[in-house]
Amino acid sequence: MSTDDADDLIFKALGHRIRRRMLDALKAGPATTGTLCAAFPELDRCTVMQHLGVLEEAGLVVPERRGRERWNHLDALPVHAIHERWIGPYAAYAASMLSRLKHEMERSE
Amino acid sequence: MSTDDADDLIFKALGHRIRRRMLDALKAGPATTGTLCAAFPELDRCTVMQHLGVLEEAGLVVPERRGRERWNHLDALPVHAIHERWIGPYAAYAASMLSRLKHEMERSE
Repeated sequence: MSTDDADDLIFKALGHRIRRRMLDALKAGPATTGTLCAAFPELDRCTVMQHLGVLEEAGLVVPERRGRERWNHLDALPVHAIHERWIGPYAAYAASMLSRLKHEMERSE
Repeated sequence: MSTDDADDLIFKALGHRIRRRMLDALKAGPATTGTLCAAFPELDRCTVMQHLGVLEEAGLVVPERRGRERWNHLDALPVHAIHERWIGPYAAYAASMLSRLKHEMERSE
């Protein structure tokens, strides 16, 4: 698979707000598919598993089988690669400062 | 516009490989639309401007008019926000180390 194809999968996966919220839920730590279903009661189990499949295909979620449970881990490396591609280590500090300034300004509005 | 709507625009913009390459081209510094057209000879001017429009709508490119020229600037803040959302400042160092290790391993394969 080319880098372009891999990136297509990543941005397709991140293009859906439910999948972004699933990654938010996994940021704190890995979760079983059952736990994720409980966190998204508006979705049936089949839909949750489809979304997890898209995230897994993109390499954003890594599944781990433990007995009958499937534990879903967030893999942040593709997210880090996005940052490296357009910001890079040298501009990271400046971006960080600008971002903080923006938050401060929004808070004081 | 909600954050979800804004994020939809960002990931839609990043979902196209030509637009990702345009951001690559702007990473080194701002460029006029004419320069970008020359960098993407396979696209006609109208298509380049459409892609720039999608990037601008997402806040990834900020246009600046200078006389008859339009200078396109990369705005890395949305990219930084993606990183902050799923990695955050505390895990950034670990992600950086893992990413370097991955590159090293790929190079030695």
